[in-house]
Amino acid sequence: MELKDFLWSLITIYVCARVMGELAARIGQSPVLGELLAGVLVGSSVLGWVEPTETLKLLGEIGVMLLLFEVGLEADLHSFLKVGWSAAAVATIGVVTPFVLGYGLAIALHMTAIQAIFVGATLTATSVAISARVLSDLGKLKTAEGNIILGAAVLDDILGLVTLSTIVGLAASGTVSWLEVGRTAGLAILFLGAAILVGIQYTHLFAALVNRMHTRGRLVVAAVTLALLLGYVADTLHIAPLVGAFAAGLLLARTEHQSHIEERIKPVNDVFVPIFFVLIGAAVDLSLLNPFKPQNWPVLLLASSLTVVAIMGKLAAGFGVIDKQVSRWAVGIGMLPRGEVGLIFAGVGLSHGIIAGGEYGAILLVVVLTTFVSPLLLKLAFKS
Amino acid sequence: MELKDFLWSLITIYVCARVMGELAARIGQSPVLGELLAGVLVGSSVLGWVEPTETLKLLGEIGVMLLLFEVGLEADLHSFLKVGWSAAAVATIGVVTPFVLGYGLAIALHMTAIQAIFVGATLTATSVAISARVLSDLGKLKTAEGNIILGAAVLDDILGLVTLSTIVGLAASGTVSWLEVGRTAGLAILFLGAAILVGIQYTHLFAALVNRMHTRGRLVVAAVTLALLLGYVADTLHIAPLVGAFAAGLLLARTEHQSHIEERIKPVNDVFVPIFFVLIGAAVDLSLLNPFKPQNWPVLLLASSLTVVAIMGKLAAGFGVIDKQVSRWAVGIGMLPRGEVGLIFAGVGLSHGIIAGGEYGAILLVVVLTTFVSPLLLKLAFKS
Repeated sequence: MELKDFLWSLITIYVCARVMGELAARIGQSPVLGELLAGVLVGSSVLGWVEPTETLKLLGEIGVMLLLFEVGLEADLHSFLKVGWSAAAVATIGVVTPFVLGYGLAIALHMTAIQAIFVGATLTATSVAISARVLSDLGKLKTAEGNIILGAAVLDDILGLVTLSTIVGLAASGTVSWLEVGRTAGLAILFLGAAILVGIQYTHLFAALVNRMHTRGRLVVAAVTLALLLGYVADTLHIAPLVGAFAAGLLLARTEHQSHIEERIKPVNDVFVPIFFVLIGAAVDLSLLNPFKPQNWPVLLLASSLTVVAIMGKLAAGFGVIDKQVSRWAVGIGMLPRGEVGLIFAGVGLSHGIIAGGEYGAILLVVVLTTFVSPLLLKLAFKS
Repeated sequence: MELKDFLWSLITIYVCARVMGELAARIGQSPVLGELLAGVLVGSSVLGWVEPTETLKLLGEIGVMLLLFEVGLEADLHSFLKVGWSAAAVATIGVVTPFVLGYGLAIALHMTAIQAIFVGATLTATSVAISARVLSDLGKLKTAEGNIILGAAVLDDILGLVTLSTIVGLAASGTVSWLEVGRTAGLAILFLGAAILVGIQYTHLFAALVNRMHTRGRLVVAAVTLALLLGYVADTLHIAPLVGAFAAGLLLARTEHQSHIEERIKPVNDVFVPIFFVLIGAAVDLSLLNPFKPQNWPVLLLASSLTVVAIMGKLAAGFGVIDKQVSRWAVGIGMLPRGEVGLIFAGVGLSHGIIAGGEYGAILLVVVLTTFVSPLLLKLAFKS
């Protein structure tokens, strides 16, 4: 990729994301909705201005990691652990219900058992990135609802990882290796637990290290490096890197430097994060939505019934909340967006030959619809 | 490139650049020297930890553009134009003297005419990025010396562009197209003039636009976008993109938002800029410096005589300064580093078949020596 093309892509992303984000804010919506729509516009299915090159994708990945780092940095581990049981219940219901409903629907539509399992599994995903960003846009990140949604979304990521690796193993060998499944799940839970529980003992070392440095940028570079490092470790354990970055944020939230890091990481994120959301939007293939093409009808039918099931399953998850003061609807709606996690699931299914182009298109539509509907509804849920 | 490898490269770059930068600061040197040395260490000629992939190179390019944007943002256009004649004289002497000396030396060493012209031209380069960073590290960016060095380095970039395109044309066709040379030079000067003179009339539009935005990150994204945009236009005119970004900084320095932009761009640069300097260091091939290998002797001999000539030529440039209050030595030393501009020149010469591996190695050594000696000497020059 030439520097010139790269500069032009970045300029296009920044200008379009900003314009659409501002427009979304004017009509009272979350700016992230505008950024996603900007992505649809500049993507290959409409204008074709931005090609998702390797470099842009890597920058987007860094962006979403730093976004979750910032979210962790603003979170309070105590109020987070306080809603731990609610979050666990929400995550569990939010995985079991969509899976069962999706599986049943797929079987009723005469899919094979392995396809039905895969379709069910895809519906279990929650995009922690989109949930976090919408909550942040609405200023609801630090509410009980916000803590439960984020906690459940992070747990969901781990459950999703276990589910995905189970299914891929099932598709490859025809049998399930429970040893492998247990190992994957155990490693992931061990990582999160160790990162937070052990990390808390050593956060003072981070502060001491930074205090001994003299040169410019010591705080932001040290913080970013820790976020990338825990993201790297997570990736090595096959957990989403953003879970590691989130853990890094939670740890640094407890240091004396918290507010200074927050102040410095925000402009960095303003530069990185739009790239991620625009690329997510650009991955949407609008032509699948055209109802005037008869060949789209089966896909649209499958997509709409899956979407209904996907939304019902996650709304049910909201009722896992224990505290009666908390809005169950808001929690359920916050768990709706499948976002990038759904896209990854669908891509894995296609590349492993579990599903074909039609089912892939339908799952993509479910991802798009749940992702776009959540910011709209969440705003209403918090208002009432 | 896998995300995991990319994360690991970034972590390595940040940790090594920070450690070496801190060490450099401890022994009273400019941190950029440490970052360059960190690059040599992690590069392929020592540890081989960081491979300069396309993505890293593009990020480094963005880093150096944003560095020059920040320098422009901190500069004062008036005190900049006040030393305009001195800067022009320094730039002219700093191009003519190294060229004549380098050409003469090459002819004396029995090179062909075209090779001698190319060797002379390579010695004319000045790395505005390294000069600016060293001045910033020393806190001398806003002195008269700093303004003259920066102004001359920017003009040098334009003169260098003209020289390079002339030589490449000469090598390709055997004749010089003065029309083409004039067109290149004219476009470059027109761009800088237009960007600054016309831009000044419209900076209030930037302020008005940002003031109308409501969503987070409006200031830093608008500023970065303008820097990338002017960099893109510069690139289109075959000028170094960092000259365009520098012009963007000069323009925004005159808006009401200057201090807020500065505050927000700094953490962004802390994340991007080390990538550039580490990659410059990583491009150094240390094996050429080994005096125990007899096959290195001709290269080392050529390199050392070229280095003497390169340093003499730029020190002479310091005497172009008109104001008697200004340290001529500091200005001359500030013009020494060939940095990335020298590397680009050498690469073009090699790829066009003008020079062979031996001359290429010697020019690389000149680039390395002038780049590493300048921060060391500049500190002394400002002390006296």
